[in-house]
Amino acid sequence: MQDQAVQPPEQGAEGEQKSKKQLQREKKEAEKAQKKQEHQKAQNAQEQQQQQQQVQEEDNCVGRYGDLNLIQSQERTNRKWIKVGDVDQTLVNQVILVRARIHNSRVKGKLAFLVLRENYNTIQVVAEKGEFASAKMLKFISGIPLESVVDIEALVKQPNKEILSCTQKVELEVRSIKVVSRSLPMLPFQIEDASRRITDFEDGVQEMKQEEPQIKQDKQEKQDKNEKQQIQVMLKTRLDNRVIDLRTPAKQAIFRVQSGIGLLFREFLVENGFIEIHTPKLIGGTSEGGTNVFKLKYFNQDACLAQSPQLYKQMCLMADYDRVFEVAPVFRAENSNTHRHQCEFISMDIEMVIKEHFTELLDLMGDLCIYMFKGIEKRYQKEIEIISQQFPFEPFKIPEPVLKLTFEEGVKMLHEAGVNQDPNDDLDTTNEKTLGKLVREKYGTDFYILHRYPKKARPFYTMPCHDDPNYTLSYDFFMRGEEIVSGAQRVHDPELLIKQIKEKGIAVEPLKDYIDSFRYGAFPHGGCAFGLERVAFLYFNLKNIRNACMFPRDPVRLFP
Amino acid sequence: MQDQAVQPPEQGAEGEQKSKKQLQREKKEAEKAQKKQEHQKAQNAQEQQQQQQQVQEEDNCVGRYGDLNLIQSQERTNRKWIKVGDVDQTLVNQVILVRARIHNSRVKGKLAFLVLRENYNTIQVVAEKGEFASAKMLKFISGIPLESVVDIEALVKQPNKEILSCTQKVELEVRSIKVVSRSLPMLPFQIEDASRRITDFEDGVQEMKQEEPQIKQDKQEKQDKNEKQQIQVMLKTRLDNRVIDLRTPAKQAIFRVQSGIGLLFREFLVENGFIEIHTPKLIGGTSEGGTNVFKLKYFNQDACLAQSPQLYKQMCLMADYDRVFEVAPVFRAENSNTHRHQCEFISMDIEMVIKEHFTELLDLMGDLCIYMFKGIEKRYQKEIEIISQQFPFEPFKIPEPVLKLTFEEGVKMLHEAGVNQDPNDDLDTTNEKTLGKLVREKYGTDFYILHRYPKKARPFYTMPCHDDPNYTLSYDFFMRGEEIVSGAQRVHDPELLIKQIKEKGIAVEPLKDYIDSFRYGAFPHGGCAFGLERVAFLYFNLKNIRNACMFPRDPVRLFP
Repeated sequence: MQDQAVQPPEQGAEGEQKSKKQLQREKKEAEKAQKKQEHQKAQNAQEQQQQQQQVQEEDNCVGRYGDLNLIQSQERTNRKWIKVGDVDQTLVNQVILVRARIHNSRVKGKLAFLVLRENYNTIQVVAEKGEFASAKMLKFISGIPLESVVDIEALVKQPNKEILSCTQKVELEVRSIKVVSRSLPMLPFQIEDASRRITDFEDGVQEMKQEEPQIKQDKQEKQDKNEKQQIQVMLKTRLDNRVIDLRTPAKQAIFRVQSGIGLLFREFLVENGFIEIHTPKLIGGTSEGGTNVFKLKYFNQDACLAQSPQLYKQMCLMADYDRVFEVAPVFRAENSNTHRHQCEFISMDIEMVIKEHFTELLDLMGDLCIYMFKGIEKRYQKEIEIISQQFPFEPFKIPEPVLKLTFEEGVKMLHEAGVNQDPNDDLDTTNEKTLGKLVREKYGTDFYILHRYPKKARPFYTMPCHDDPNYTLSYDFFMRGEEIVSGAQRVHDPELLIKQIKEKGIAVEPLKDYIDSFRYGAFPHGGCAFGLERVAFLYFNLKNIRNACMFPRDPVRLFP
Repeated sequence: MQDQAVQPPEQGAEGEQKSKKQLQREKKEAEKAQKKQEHQKAQNAQEQQQQQQQVQEEDNCVGRYGDLNLIQSQERTNRKWIKVGDVDQTLVNQVILVRARIHNSRVKGKLAFLVLRENYNTIQVVAEKGEFASAKMLKFISGIPLESVVDIEALVKQPNKEILSCTQKVELEVRSIKVVSRSLPMLPFQIEDASRRITDFEDGVQEMKQEEPQIKQDKQEKQDKNEKQQIQVMLKTRLDNRVIDLRTPAKQAIFRVQSGIGLLFREFLVENGFIEIHTPKLIGGTSEGGTNVFKLKYFNQDACLAQSPQLYKQMCLMADYDRVFEVAPVFRAENSNTHRHQCEFISMDIEMVIKEHFTELLDLMGDLCIYMFKGIEKRYQKEIEIISQQFPFEPFKIPEPVLKLTFEEGVKMLHEAGVNQDPNDDLDTTNEKTLGKLVREKYGTDFYILHRYPKKARPFYTMPCHDDPNYTLSYDFFMRGEEIVSGAQRVHDPELLIKQIKEKGIAVEPLKDYIDSFRYGAFPHGGCAFGLERVAFLYFNLKNIRNACMFPRDPVRLFP
């Protein structure tokens, strides 16, 4: 398996008519090329012979380094590859096999040092000229570009002094090294540069305002004034070369935790009698009133993309699935270029019947949040540590029981702090953040619930309060002063629903199927929706929601 | 809480200019109406008095029946509602509270019999004229339309003779009955009719051919020749009134199992080191070559909906997430009106690195299937029983180890049975089904794997076999002769990938980000995709995939 990977030749399209002159010229050129080729061949043969001689004389490592053929299921040896993260003291003095990327390499005289990386784990590898590494092998090793994937057989050793720069505290002594896949020598940026601690500087750049939709161009900036010039990788570069950026340890950790958030969400709900549903994203007519929707042609009908599964999850309840959830993309054609808006994101939706009171729902959702936050803390200690190295954040404070404030109480706190806020309208982002700060100061929590929003701030399907029709049985959850959940008791009476639809100036006809679903016996119910990316983004204080989405979509970004 | 739910009055728009004549006429009419009203009032008062007298004389049940106000979180009593499915012998002689639909009701002299339904569970309720039910209360009960939602307080009793028609074997004796939400008296169809055993007749209607895209109109058909005329609810009617159809016991069970299939899928994968990812559904340019895609405008760019997460899940692997899965909708603008095609469905996608051989992947996927099938059988006995009452099916046979045949072996079996099949082209639906039958006869299995498909039948990203470039390292999984999974080892070499893209006549440029992701060190890898609806549809032999999708989308259906 020492040969170069077979590279299938690119075939050019030929077959056009050519002039006689052209043919003659080409013939001459061909002859010339042939002569040159023959000369080269002879020279190569000579060199090869010399090399082979040298190899026989010097290289005691033939067969222990080189490039593997393209792996194409030629054989199954059942050898065991060990994960870098699993290589520890228990394996000392054993020869093991790993497959990983070359994260770093340097040759110092007769020594080659490599750092291998697999996911966010790293390990030091040493090759010393001698029994296990010939000069040629060292040269081969030093020529492997960073980020290439290699198979390394090596002896696990206890190092003489502690290794600080790698996650693994043992060292590998190379026995063989085979390249599985070579990287291009020039990367769009270095993993190391993209892994640096996020600074206030970058924070500022990543905060995009609606007035300046273009993400600023990359710059090199003197970062550490006392030491050397460090390269800062800008968000646009990261997103343009997302596959490389996602290899950085913090991103590796973020998306592992994010997978876990979905898991914790499901665990809690399934345990509490919910089932998972799937509702269509292709919607006939308009979705929930029709603003900010992506429109498309569906065969010869007009369709749009679902802004949320709202109407469908309610219909599921009317179809006797009494507790449902859905985790699925939703689509918003909103021209907002901010640090927290996305045109496509994952909505974790919940809807359930209630017997009497919307606090049945509210209490359960509070418990769900606590379950998720505690679960993250318990299961992802290692990931939290890694993320905090790049994105420093203050630990997330959640005293129990969860703090609940009415919207009116929130407005009062803002007014007392001298902030303008209409008591009958929604909070804007600035006031949300201000209120978050005030709440943190007063109650010592990063997580709280605001409920009884004014009617004007909520959609048509929100149940009004029985004691004051200007307020609604609705709520938002906040993390570090930004909204992560929005929910309410819903209207389950078709006539009241129609009245509220009309009040909002929305056409009734396209909502017929939805309205009719409440005509054949309706259960009182409510629900809410979590933004998955927002949970991770705010839990870890990632500054920009794009850091919590693998392939983000905003008004200017549709690639990759 | 006895008053009628407050129905907000609809307000008509008035204020047009009126003629004098008109005003006079209206005045006269108003006077007339007023007189009539006064007369009516006097009469009503008299009647009311009489009624009140009667009530005082006869009705010992005042306050124990009536319509509740619209439930609007007025109070939280913390009373405990028991689920119908939980009412059993252990509760005999206790007074309990349930909230459920009226599934059936009849009054026989001094007795009222109700059947309550919650999810797929039913229970018999009796009200007998006497201490606990006045004549008025019985009349009230008999007037509640089917499918209305009621709160019933009742004594749990052991019935004199076994109740065969309900899932619960105890009986309820009414103490109070309050209507939470009334149904319209006329349903689009009766739940009972929609719950009948699916017959061959319906089977034939539900099978839609591409030549006849219009679903046939509803018909009533003499079904049971020996007894009475039974109403058959056709697929179109069911889908047009989906919320009602989804209330039938079989559908209640199907979508509970389907939620479980997703759960089992995740459990196995998480246990085996996979993480869940979310990739965009809004794709720049074209998706995987661009046929059969839904196109749309994304601000001022051209976009389309993802046909699969194929390219993105591979990119995730190149970004060092070595085992990933995604459960998400995919979109196919295919004008196919068949029993098994959908324009939007849930794809359960998997992608993982392999070390040497695509059987590493294949074996794991086989284990995953076994885990899911056994899990369904173990966890959903009750649901399986309920589904089989409407959709009779033969138990699903899965001998272990899973049968693996090469495509060539499959073609040979077809040829031996006298069936035409090009050894270098894909199987069509008919031949797939035929092969399924042949395999079942020969090997006694409803589940098998066919691998090494010809190159022509597979997409550009499929790795060719090293020993024969006309075949590929690909596979399909079959249930009852229909495909549920398609997968392969992928090409991880960018030059070979470009060659194969060109061979398929697809433009290279829009795939640049994808191709480039293999240039910076690539892991050998492979994966597959399960159609979620297909798994349920074929496991239970539901005849039509629309029976396994809550709100299906096909070329003619975009509502509800």
